[in-house]
Amino acid sequence: MRSLWLENQNLKFREDVPVPVPERAEALIRVLLSGVCSTDLELVCGYYPFSGVPGHEFVGEVVNSPDDPTWIGKRVVGEINIACGQCEMCQSGLNRHCEYRKTLGIHAWNGSFAEYLVLPLTNLHAVPEQISDEIAVFTEPLAAAHEILEQTILQPADRVLIIGAGRLGQLMAAVIQDTGCQLDVVARHQKLRMLLEKQNIHAISESGLGSRKYDVVIEATGSVDGFTLACKSVRPRGRIVLKSTYQGNAEVNLSGIVVDEITLIGSRCGSFEPALGLLAEGKVDPLPLIEATYSLEQGVSAFEFAARPAVLKVLIQPTLL
Amino acid sequence: MRSLWLENQNLKFREDVPVPVPERAEALIRVLLSGVCSTDLELVCGYYPFSGVPGHEFVGEVVNSPDDPTWIGKRVVGEINIACGQCEMCQSGLNRHCEYRKTLGIHAWNGSFAEYLVLPLTNLHAVPEQISDEIAVFTEPLAAAHEILEQTILQPADRVLIIGAGRLGQLMAAVIQDTGCQLDVVARHQKLRMLLEKQNIHAISESGLGSRKYDVVIEATGSVDGFTLACKSVRPRGRIVLKSTYQGNAEVNLSGIVVDEITLIGSRCGSFEPALGLLAEGKVDPLPLIEATYSLEQGVSAFEFAARPAVLKVLIQPTLL
Repeated sequence: MRSLWLENQNLKFREDVPVPVPERAEALIRVLLSGVCSTDLELVCGYYPFSGVPGHEFVGEVVNSPDDPTWIGKRVVGEINIACGQCEMCQSGLNRHCEYRKTLGIHAWNGSFAEYLVLPLTNLHAVPEQISDEIAVFTEPLAAAHEILEQTILQPADRVLIIGAGRLGQLMAAVIQDTGCQLDVVARHQKLRMLLEKQNIHAISESGLGSRKYDVVIEATGSVDGFTLACKSVRPRGRIVLKSTYQGNAEVNLSGIVVDEITLIGSRCGSFEPALGLLAEGKVDPLPLIEATYSLEQGVSAFEFAARPAVLKVLIQPTLL
Repeated sequence: MRSLWLENQNLKFREDVPVPVPERAEALIRVLLSGVCSTDLELVCGYYPFSGVPGHEFVGEVVNSPDDPTWIGKRVVGEINIACGQCEMCQSGLNRHCEYRKTLGIHAWNGSFAEYLVLPLTNLHAVPEQISDEIAVFTEPLAAAHEILEQTILQPADRVLIIGAGRLGQLMAAVIQDTGCQLDVVARHQKLRMLLEKQNIHAISESGLGSRKYDVVIEATGSVDGFTLACKSVRPRGRIVLKSTYQGNAEVNLSGIVVDEITLIGSRCGSFEPALGLLAEGKVDPLPLIEATYSLEQGVSAFEFAARPAVLKVLIQPTLL
């Protein structure tokens, strides 16, 4: 089949990748649309030594499901962590933290920048009819954005700051705006500020930022500078949510965290059901985030475009030739 | 009056320090007993540029209270943060995080290694009769230990690890043992392990520590090595409570915190009422932690003794000559 292939930080288009074969309780899925995420760009930069087909944000159609044919023909999105089901984490309901997990397009499991992928049936969620492919492809990143609300309670009186208005920052802003709390978003680029303001979200620049002021600060830049800014802008007894990964270690003033009794919350993937709910109800509209749709053949160009500053969502559509 | 005096990291005994004069809504307190804490030792090492009388753990007797004479003659302990009462933190009930706070024996306010000190009446708590001076002097560190339970919920099924079995570690172990959860305490010294085991608390050595196993890890060593150990021993989605301050910055793998969705909780001072309750009910017995009682004149020796490895609580008694 046609697919993108990553090896030794070298991304290329290939036509000779075998169509994967579903094993027990797995489904073969034809990919309809797939989104390029910052993690994909980081994989190409060598953030993690992955070889294979990248891509983990997708919507597709089940074309084979040997153990449960009722899935065939269904439009689905899929959770990205493939869990063992046996370890202590899995047994305690934390499948996303399975100690032996594989991760779609990220670790030991081929991903969605291809004509086909396989996933366990337990990872699949049927997509309600009213959600278009272009919207459904945002389920995975929206679930990651919504995860914050599953980890910490936001009250309407809370002053919340999001640092970073990129792909994930925009989705988080929409999710958090919906809670009714007082939200500011630090956005460097005029284009990103305007996108926020169209949704009546208050965008600010770094220079306009009050110190020790916010009840909750969400760091979504993935840079240590963003983390430093988060530490400065959170109030004593406030919370910092870390929503992006960092290259290498960061120099952290742990004493500041102790003296000000800050809570730091690491946050990664989220549940798909609430995300699908938000999309079905139209509470979050991700369509303005789409910048371009590329074919698989042009996948390398898609990655290059997605890596430019202030570029939001780039999609790859295998049927596009 | 007689007191210890710290200046330019030089601790000495002085007889010429004026008896402090209580201002509006303050009390003059005769110090009965005062405890040496790790923070005091760090002040001498230059951790914070304090000049004046150190000491913040004390029990005393009110000898003058111009605005409210009903306090006179009462035995009291005192909260250490002197708040402005006006700033946003104070107005929202977080007096301990007042932006303009002074701190007894730590910042801009003379402390308890002296014959007398003053404190605002709002900082005082009367000591119930059944609590002896030797026990009451532990109220402040016990409140700091109990603070953990005010910041995070511990369930009986939770596997909790305390790293460090020193002054604060021992008190935290007693507080957490009382919740009924499954507790292990990392103790390097045989003497500290035996003290724990006398209270039926499970002491372990670093080498016996399982990785990614504990639901909650409490770091009380104040060393970056302790923090590294905490990160290794906490399970995914677990909590790390930071209970001690660190000299300088630490190299932290923030990505690990994100990927494993760890929550890091900074924890400093606590409420006095629950601590007095635990002492009055005899649920925590701090007496075995007392190693020696020194006079003010011998205060410098008291500090030297308290700084030795595995030495627990050293008290200073101004009436001892």
